[in-house]
Amino acid sequence: MDIKNYVTEKAKNSKLAAKKLSYMDTNTKNKALLEMSKALLENKDYILSQNKIDIEAAEKIGTSKALIDRLTLDDKRINNMAEALIKTASLQDPIGEIIKMWKTPDELQIGQMRVPLGVIGIIYEARPNVTVDAAALCIKSGNAVILRGGKEAINSNTAIIRVIREAVIKSGLPSGSIEFIDITDRETVNVMMKLNGLIDVLIPRGGAGLIKSVVENSTVPVIETGTGNCHVYVDKYADFEKAENIIINAKLQRPAVCNAMESLLVHKDVADEFLPRLCKKLKDLNVEIRGCSVTQRIVSDVVPAVDEDYAKEFLDLILSVKVVGSLDEAIDHIFKYSTNHSEAIITENYTNAQRFLKEVDAAAVYVNASTRFTDGEQFGFGGEIGISTQKLHARGPMGLNQLTTTKYIIYGDGQVRK
Amino acid sequence: MDIKNYVTEKAKNSKLAAKKLSYMDTNTKNKALLEMSKALLENKDYILSQNKIDIEAAEKIGTSKALIDRLTLDDKRINNMAEALIKTASLQDPIGEIIKMWKTPDELQIGQMRVPLGVIGIIYEARPNVTVDAAALCIKSGNAVILRGGKEAINSNTAIIRVIREAVIKSGLPSGSIEFIDITDRETVNVMMKLNGLIDVLIPRGGAGLIKSVVENSTVPVIETGTGNCHVYVDKYADFEKAENIIINAKLQRPAVCNAMESLLVHKDVADEFLPRLCKKLKDLNVEIRGCSVTQRIVSDVVPAVDEDYAKEFLDLILSVKVVGSLDEAIDHIFKYSTNHSEAIITENYTNAQRFLKEVDAAAVYVNASTRFTDGEQFGFGGEIGISTQKLHARGPMGLNQLTTTKYIIYGDGQVRK
Repeated sequence: MDIKNYVTEKAKNSKLAAKKLSYMDTNTKNKALLEMSKALLENKDYILSQNKIDIEAAEKIGTSKALIDRLTLDDKRINNMAEALIKTASLQDPIGEIIKMWKTPDELQIGQMRVPLGVIGIIYEARPNVTVDAAALCIKSGNAVILRGGKEAINSNTAIIRVIREAVIKSGLPSGSIEFIDITDRETVNVMMKLNGLIDVLIPRGGAGLIKSVVENSTVPVIETGTGNCHVYVDKYADFEKAENIIINAKLQRPAVCNAMESLLVHKDVADEFLPRLCKKLKDLNVEIRGCSVTQRIVSDVVPAVDEDYAKEFLDLILSVKVVGSLDEAIDHIFKYSTNHSEAIITENYTNAQRFLKEVDAAAVYVNASTRFTDGEQFGFGGEIGISTQKLHARGPMGLNQLTTTKYIIYGDGQVRK
Repeated sequence: MDIKNYVTEKAKNSKLAAKKLSYMDTNTKNKALLEMSKALLENKDYILSQNKIDIEAAEKIGTSKALIDRLTLDDKRINNMAEALIKTASLQDPIGEIIKMWKTPDELQIGQMRVPLGVIGIIYEARPNVTVDAAALCIKSGNAVILRGGKEAINSNTAIIRVIREAVIKSGLPSGSIEFIDITDRETVNVMMKLNGLIDVLIPRGGAGLIKSVVENSTVPVIETGTGNCHVYVDKYADFEKAENIIINAKLQRPAVCNAMESLLVHKDVADEFLPRLCKKLKDLNVEIRGCSVTQRIVSDVVPAVDEDYAKEFLDLILSVKVVGSLDEAIDHIFKYSTNHSEAIITENYTNAQRFLKEVDAAAVYVNASTRFTDGEQFGFGGEIGISTQKLHARGPMGLNQLTTTKYIIYGDGQVRK
């Protein structure tokens, strides 16, 4: 089989579908999402049986428990996928919105209209629910989607795709609305990365290796959903109780995700009072502290931090700690080590809060709240396809609006340029 | 000299400058623009003398007249550059605008704030005025800029940079606000294209070859300012007078630019009446007509069009013409051949106008107006750094807003995620 040809044909089919999807009426798109939801529930047994094949294969090769958990579907998880589809149907259709409209001195009426991106390629790894979630958000926003999942979930994904594609076609959407690359050869990704003109954007979702590889090799534009080396800075004027709650939440509520806290900065004037109590609690919660020399002096049993500890996204029960001399030093430290994902200051001081919001450059900058809120659902977008850490196009949680572009529509009356 | 090291050091300087520029107050930025303007006028003789060196060198190697014209500076052109700076100073500062703000059920107040992209790399060719225009738009929008001009203008650019950089520093902006790569070795571009983390976006401005090379080789995100294969479709219900005026304007007002018309589609029911008269006028204006078989039958002296003629951006006094059977066929033809820049329908029919606006996908879609209006100045943006033909980030004319990204700022009161 010629892989290049195979992937290119799928993408051509997607492009044709995207043309129709781009002005498909909202009711038909919603109907498709509801049909997809129904079909998932009706074919639960089939999907679970195929998922079982993936799980057994994974166990055979000694896959880690965490990965097997991500791979595993059960009754409840399929129900959740079905519910997510219903919820996506209930969201407002972003397409056709006129973001603004104005009149020029030539009496041209110019409007900026929200339209789909076109064809979105999603390259992802283990979790089969991404197949459904990504397809739902793309269809609702009028985009065709090409899904390329990981080989560990190939049987689950193939089953899900068979079920939801049938529902999509039955609802009157073009067959190319959802394309799935059912060959897991790495070469399929290489081909996708070069399909300029057929694929409008690639969104890699998965480990740092996958994302780096796509960013470095794709000529198709990429939206980078990246790593989060998130800081919390406890200012001289922090409310200690808020600080403690936020730090424990940001570090521990779900340590393995990108919006979890990785590094703590504390103003020197409050370090003596604040750090020992906090660190005791964190250690009771099994968090390893890697601290600067001042932290080591104030707190017992601290692992000395090396420079890399401040640059690392642990995604684990490890926290780097540094005592800083001023707000400026905190901002400079964040500038140096941040991946510009989510950064927080804890302070009761108005001017320091405003300065932090203004001077720290990240997708989300917080005053007195947990970095864990950086999420499409929490922000009120009704879902997300990932969190962008790049500056171009979309930054932060990517909901339906972030899967769109705009076009200018111009109503004239015979105007020509002088 | 180690080129990689040289370019990287410049970019590091830019990144440091970008940090300060990102929250620089509007008055200081405006003052710098006005100082730059003044400095250009004060150093006119010096700039013209350096420009003369470039022109002589170009003449020596037999450069085309058109290119030499683009390269040439004179009193008036320097005055124009100085005026453009004053105008940019008068535009509203996009930075700090809160595009929207809302409250979540957790009582978090979330705002989306416009912030600079950071460091913008501009890779451009002959025209020295780009040096000033690009620098002005970048500074006003709080970005640091790295300029890499063509070797044919190296003396002019070096002189301009020396003059405006001095003004910038005098005004209190960081020295890295404007960096200039004064080595014309092609390798400098290669280095820029790989400086992820130091350069936030690259904007190539120039010929198709330059743009293609940057799009294909850059790992830094690129904004593509591309080609325009722009169509005008004369509907069955067109007002012939409007149609004729618009076609002549779109084709001839400035044929060598991307928003000029390249291809004409005419509904079959009006072709017999409309085409002969129009083509006569066009031929009198020295436009070569390359037509389909129907056009050849209706109009005399038509060059038979081959398929490539419909795909080509002539940038010259050549027009491809096709008679189509319906609005659907026109839309399909545009879908197939368009570069999605600017497309126009001429019609008095309400439903056809609305369908064309909805179904044609391009940066700018017109009813009854010339494609030549696709321009930052004409759209009311007060200037532009190019016209994006990609869908990601910016589409259409790129003014100050398109040189920005956003960050979410979140005002909390101790909230944690449940």
